[in-house]
This record gives sequence, structure tokens and C-alpha cells, in this order.
Amino acid sequence: MTEIDVLRNRVDEITLQMARLLKDRTDTVRRIGEVKRSIGMRVTDQRREDALRQKVIGLCGTTGMDESIAAKFLNFLVNESVKVQSEKSTHLSVFRRAKALEEQGRDIIHMEVGEPDFMPPEPAGRALAESYSAGRVRYGPAEGMPELRDALARYASERFGARVGRENILVSPGGRFAVFAAITTLLNPGDEIITIEPAWPAYKECALDAGVKVRAVKTTLGDGWSPSLREVRRLANPNTRMIVLNYPNNPTGKILDAATQDGIMSMAEENGLYVLSDEIYSEYAPDDWRSVLSYGYENGIAVQSFSKSHAMTGFRVGFAVADPGTIGRMARLQALCLTSVAEPIQYAALGALGSDVSGNARLVRGRLESVCRRAEGMGLEFARPDGAMYVFARVRDGLDGAELANILLDHGVAIAPGEGFGEYGDFVRISACQDEKKLMEGMDILDGILRR
Amino acid sequence: MTEIDVLRNRVDEITLQMARLLKDRTDTVRRIGEVKRSIGMRVTDQRREDALRQKVIGLCGTTGMDESIAAKFLNFLVNESVKVQSEKSTHLSVFRRAKALEEQGRDIIHMEVGEPDFMPPEPAGRALAESYSAGRVRYGPAEGMPELRDALARYASERFGARVGRENILVSPGGRFAVFAAITTLLNPGDEIITIEPAWPAYKECALDAGVKVRAVKTTLGDGWSPSLREVRRLANPNTRMIVLNYPNNPTGKILDAATQDGIMSMAEENGLYVLSDEIYSEYAPDDWRSVLSYGYENGIAVQSFSKSHAMTGFRVGFAVADPGTIGRMARLQALCLTSVAEPIQYAALGALGSDVSGNARLVRGRLESVCRRAEGMGLEFARPDGAMYVFARVRDGLDGAELANILLDHGVAIAPGEGFGEYGDFVRISACQDEKKLMEGMDILDGILRR
Repeated sequence: MTEIDVLRNRVDEITLQMARLLKDRTDTVRRIGEVKRSIGMRVTDQRREDALRQKVIGLCGTTGMDESIAAKFLNFLVNESVKVQSEKSTHLSVFRRAKALEEQGRDIIHMEVGEPDFMPPEPAGRALAESYSAGRVRYGPAEGMPELRDALARYASERFGARVGRENILVSPGGRFAVFAAITTLLNPGDEIITIEPAWPAYKECALDAGVKVRAVKTTLGDGWSPSLREVRRLANPNTRMIVLNYPNNPTGKILDAATQDGIMSMAEENGLYVLSDEIYSEYAPDDWRSVLSYGYENGIAVQSFSKSHAMTGFRVGFAVADPGTIGRMARLQALCLTSVAEPIQYAALGALGSDVSGNARLVRGRLESVCRRAEGMGLEFARPDGAMYVFARVRDGLDGAELANILLDHGVAIAPGEGFGEYGDFVRISACQDEKKLMEGMDILDGILRR
Repeated sequence: MTEIDVLRNRVDEITLQMARLLKDRTDTVRRIGEVKRSIGMRVTDQRREDALRQKVIGLCGTTGMDESIAAKFLNFLVNESVKVQSEKSTHLSVFRRAKALEEQGRDIIHMEVGEPDFMPPEPAGRALAESYSAGRVRYGPAEGMPELRDALARYASERFGARVGRENILVSPGGRFAVFAAITTLLNPGDEIITIEPAWPAYKECALDAGVKVRAVKTTLGDGWSPSLREVRRLANPNTRMIVLNYPNNPTGKILDAATQDGIMSMAEENGLYVLSDEIYSEYAPDDWRSVLSYGYENGIAVQSFSKSHAMTGFRVGFAVADPGTIGRMARLQALCLTSVAEPIQYAALGALGSDVSGNARLVRGRLESVCRRAEGMGLEFARPDGAMYVFARVRDGLDGAELANILLDHGVAIAPGEGFGEYGDFVRISACQDEKKLMEGMDILDGILRR
């Protein structure tokens, strides 16, 4: 036998030993799950997992093993069953039920989704209408139409303090795809990301889909939904590769104070972390809001969408702004799974871009004010939103948000349960995307239910 | 100590044992790499990997361990580094270069992509134009607009001998996404698929992206591009979960004879394999072509697109027809990464659906005839296509297809190198998607180059 044969046999032997242990481990974990269920314990326990992680890292120290390989391996073992669908009640599950009720002829006041009731800018409609006769019906580059990318680069430079060109832009089917592509292509299974909750569920779902571990900083109403910089630092470890920001925040509407935002950016730069900043509510932000692009950080990725800013939800078009290398990786996934955004849609986005949409922001601001006043009158607890289009309010007396959303839907009003945004089961998100009359009607019905 | 504490300690102990073995394994693998490099051996060895896989699967059999967990685990250890991009020259890389030359003002005859030069049906353009005023600009269900799904179910039932309803349809951004979603959501890392080459590169790329192993049946010009049923059976093993079919075939234009197709379907049914049938050239098929849907097989998935049939490449809209459970899994991925296909685009697809597009097929058939006659006159070797829109021809005297494509592009004609479709480096694919005058001009230039 050659040296290689001897070594190979050794690898096979080790692999089989590991597989036997894996079987033993899987059986033991299953047994723990049974015992936990029988006594009503929660399934995951972060402290235990962290303690085990410390033990493994300690072992690395004594044996000279590469810490990142070991930690990745541990994440693989721990994450084995995370791909199971979440059973949570979310704004989308309520939206689906509301749509089904409408198909049956019921009238529903939609206060569950962030879908503006006003129309997209007329130039978007005109461009869409002209795209057929203009021959805008063909294959194009995965990254997007060159003239649209150029226009978006100018837009990002003017509005977000970025210094970017065409090579920094990816046109994607909605902000959602940009988030999915960034998490899927920049991270590997076993890597970790830090999110700040409450949060739009997609960050966590995309991470789980990619085998990436999520550690969430929990913010509270008591702290005005501001994350603790110390807590962000505490959750970071050698496997952390990305921090996800979303300000103005969905669902709370808050923005970061300058010191906290600067602190997070410094911490990210020190550790070379990606900062994935979902900025789709930037048109609904106060003047002191600041884009991640203004930091000029090479690992910063801003996600934008025409859905909220231009009321173009059904067009499914957004974009990412990032380093050309990052854009290239995301574009390869886009090329693999869908070629590019439809050309007529890109043409419509180009049409929309020149429109002044500041009136939309004023309109939503006014509606939010009305919802806040009414909610205060009802005794709901919440922090006044700085921006976005939602009020995230606690429902009194340990009432469950998902239950409340269900009861309310039976009365013709759809709202989003808080549990979809993290462990905020006693909260609900109220969206101010309908006209004021409808919103007040919805709030009256909510008030009636809460008084019962 | 409670029972849970005992079990938890056991998990910790096993985990640490596994970590120690991982360290040992990593060191041994590194040593093998050093020895291999010192004697100039290749880094990966498929047979060895397969043998190890068999040993682990054998262990699963004797210990009652879940095979899919074990296969995933092995995949993690072997860390196949499959996400590396292919460096091959493909129809898309030529298309990108051709587009770049056009931006510089050069005239290019496009015989590299399957993009028809005729316009989409007018009703598609009208529907698109009306979508804004009709308010078709909103979020909708991930699976697609109910009225479009109903219409597609009727279409599939009438044309493909399927017995399907709305619940069997997913509207996707192109056939490409349907392929991506089927492979990504129905298979797990460590699973295997069988493809028949030459083949559109996306099947393999999607599989590699999902950590799925591809085994390819190689067909030959000598056998008229017909796959051997015996070879299909030989490649199947306990990890095989799917067979991918694509007839009329891209790039050869061939269809399966009835006995072979029936044989493959029987073999799939016997083993419970998914049959992913990419049927996007069905409008360009002879009368004896038969859809996989006509077999009524519950694990059959047909992929369709408006790109070729309705010349709607730039609309990015297609659909999958499958069992409701399969559609549900694919729809969850679509919801996660892009919400749904843009509503105006779905509306356009609905508009297109009633149009008679048989004239397009006759047109392409005529062009293919002309290309074939000219290619015969030039002494190129190929099998006359039964359908689709391509001629897949061998270039004489060991000439390299990629090299030829490069030289030809310098002379203003784009064709697709064969190596992108598998190991067919001495072939090129000629697309008949331009008008006959341009096609003949392109063939003349090709002839001139080959005569030099």
C-alpha cells in the first residue's frame, strides 16, 4: 500500500466513526425533544447551545484545530432541522386569508400589508404601455438594462450620498430578491448573521434557507426600539459575517440614532462584516435618516425597491447597491435562477425614476399621525414611528396578537400579528396604507373588539 | 440530575468526540493533498468519493440511520466546493460578448441564442399596455393570478393531454426559475440527478448550486442523439431522485422515440423518481412528440415558458405543471425569494394565451430547413432536428467549437460553442432565430472561415 492508500483508509475509517456518532447524536437529540414536549419546554435553548460552542472552541485551543471549521461543523449539527417551515402567523398569512375572504365577496380593510393604495407614477404606466411598441421585449444582461443601472447609480449618488456607478447596481425582482441573493451568495452554511428584532421575517427565512445561523438583538418598546451596541458586540463571534439593518424599521418605524448607527458601522468595519441595509422605507424617512451608502464602506450593501417609494408593489422591481464584486456574485445567482428582471418592468422603473413622489410620503405621514392619535385614545402602548408606514403597538392585558388578528379579520379588518417579526406575540403591526376614512373605520372596529 | 440533563451531557460528549475526529480527519486530508501535489495527482477523485458514499449508506442500512442526514453530513465533510463557477464557454458568454460588441456599434448576426426575432402576439402587448389603467399593479399570490393559473391549466389539459386544475400550476419568472425551484426544493444535498447530454447548462448549474450530484448520460451523433435506456439504468443508484428530460432537445432538436420515452418513464415510476421535463420547445415539436404530462405520473413536472412559444423572452414568464404538493414546495421558494411574477407580466401572459402561434413554428421550421441544406452543402456533420430551433453540428478536423465561435464573432456572426452543453467541444449550435437572409449571410461567413 502506498502512503496515499494508508491515509485514505484512515479518512474512511474516521468518516464512518463520525457517522456512527452522528446516528447516536441524532437519536439522543430526538429523545430530548420528546422529553421536552412531554413537560412543555421550548425546543431551542440558546444558552445551552452557546455553552457547547464554548466547549468546542476550548477543544480547538488545546488541539490546535481551526476554530472556524469547528464552529461551522457545530452549526451544521445544531442547524440540522431548522429548515422546517415556521408555523408562525405572519402579515403574509393574514394577507392570504384576507384575499381568500375577498374572493368570497367579503370587504376587508387592509391594515396588514405595506401596500400603498395610491397608484404608481404615471410615467411608469406610460413606459409600460410603450414597451411593446418600443420592442422592449428581449433578453438582456442579468444585472439589468445599462441605462437603468446608470440612472439608478445617479439616483443613489444624489439621494443617499453614495459614490457609485453602473457597476455598483443590480436590478432585481423586488428588494426581496436582493436580500435573498446577498444572504445566499455572500455567506456559507455555518456562517452567522446578526439581525435586530423586531424585523421583517425574510432576513431570518433567507438565512435559514441558506444554512446560515441567525442571532437576533432583541429591542424593546421600553428602550424605544433602540438596539444596545454592547449587545450587538456580544453576539458577534468568529463566525459572524453580516449584520442586517432595516431603518426606518419595519415594523416599528424607528430609525437609529447617529451614535448607535456609527457604532455599528465601526464594529462592522473593524471585523470586516457585511452590512446588509434594507432601506426600502427611505422615502418615508425623517431628514436625519442616513443611508449605509454614505459611509463608503466596501462591504455595505443597500437594498432598495420601487414597491413602497413608488407604490409599485406588483411590478416586483428593486435594486441593490454594493461593491462590484458583491454585485457580480449576486448577479450570477440572478442569471442562474431567472436570467434578469423582465425588460418591460425595467423600462417602467426607468420611467418612474424621474417622478416626484414626495407627496406620497406626506400622505402616509399624515395617515400615520391619525392612526397614532386614535391608538393613543384607545390606550394602546407604542413608540411614535420616525418613518415607514406602520404603528407597532402592544395589545393590553397579555392578549395574544395572532388571536386578535384572527378575531379582527372575522370583523373585516386585517392587521399583522407581532409574532411574525420575532418573539413579539403581544404586539400587532397596523399599516397606514389605506385612506384615512378606511383607517379610522378599521381602528374603530379594533377599539370595539378590545373593549369587549 | 434529571433525564434531560443526562441526555444533554451525552450530546455534549458525542459532539466533542466528533470534533476531535474532525480535527484528525482535516489533518489527514491535508496530508493527502500534500502527497498528491508532490506526485502531481488531481485533487478530486470521483470513484473514491462514490465508494465512501456507499460505505456510509451501508452503515445507514445496518444502524437504521436516516440516509438523507448521513448524505448531507458526508457532503459537508467532502465539501465539494461545487459553488465554483464553471469556466466553460457557453451560448451565454458568446451572447454577452456579442451584446458588448453591439454597444460599440458593431453589427452582429445572432445565431447563438434561442431568441426568436418575431414579436410577441399583439394581445400580449395590449394587455401589458392596459395593465396600469386596469390597476394590475399589486401584490398577488406566490403561485400566480388565479385566472391565469386556471387558463394555463386548461391550456395544459388541451395541448399536453394533462388532467390538471389551478392547483397544479405555478406561474414563474421564466422556465428557468421553474427548473431552479424544482431542483432546489425537491432535492437535498447529497441527492443525485440524471441528465442526458448534450443539455442546456442550467440543469447542471442548478444542481451544483443545490449541492446535488449530476450523472450524465452521454448521447452521440452516431446514435442520432438517442440515449441508451441501459445506460440510464446503470447510472441510477439509491441516491438518485430525479431524471431531467428536455425534448425537443436543446441543442440537438431531437425527440425521444416512443419506446425510449416509455422506458424512461417506467423506470422512473418503478423507483419513484421525479421526472423534470423541460418542454419549452413543445410548440416547435413534430406531431409524434408527447408531453410527460400525458403519462399522468404524480412525480412528473413539466416546465413551460412563453419565451420560445410566444417570442416573449424579455417578459420572463413561464410555468410549471405538477402535483399540488410539488407546486406548493416550489411556490414557497418563489414566495421567499421574489414574492410572485410581476402582475402586469402575468396579465400579458394571459393576453398572449389565446393567440394562434402556429405560424411561428412554420416559420422556424422553414428556416431550420434552409440552415440544414446550407450546412449539408458545407459538409458539416449533424442529425436533422425533429424540432426546436437549432442545428447542432460537428466542426471538421478536430477544430475546437469555442475557438471557432470566437473567430466567427470577430467576423460579425455569433454561434454557440458545443462545450457549454457537455463535453462536445468539437460541436457548435446554430440557432435559426433570424430571418432567412441574415441566416444565410451568417452561414456564408461560417463557410468562408471553415474553408481557410
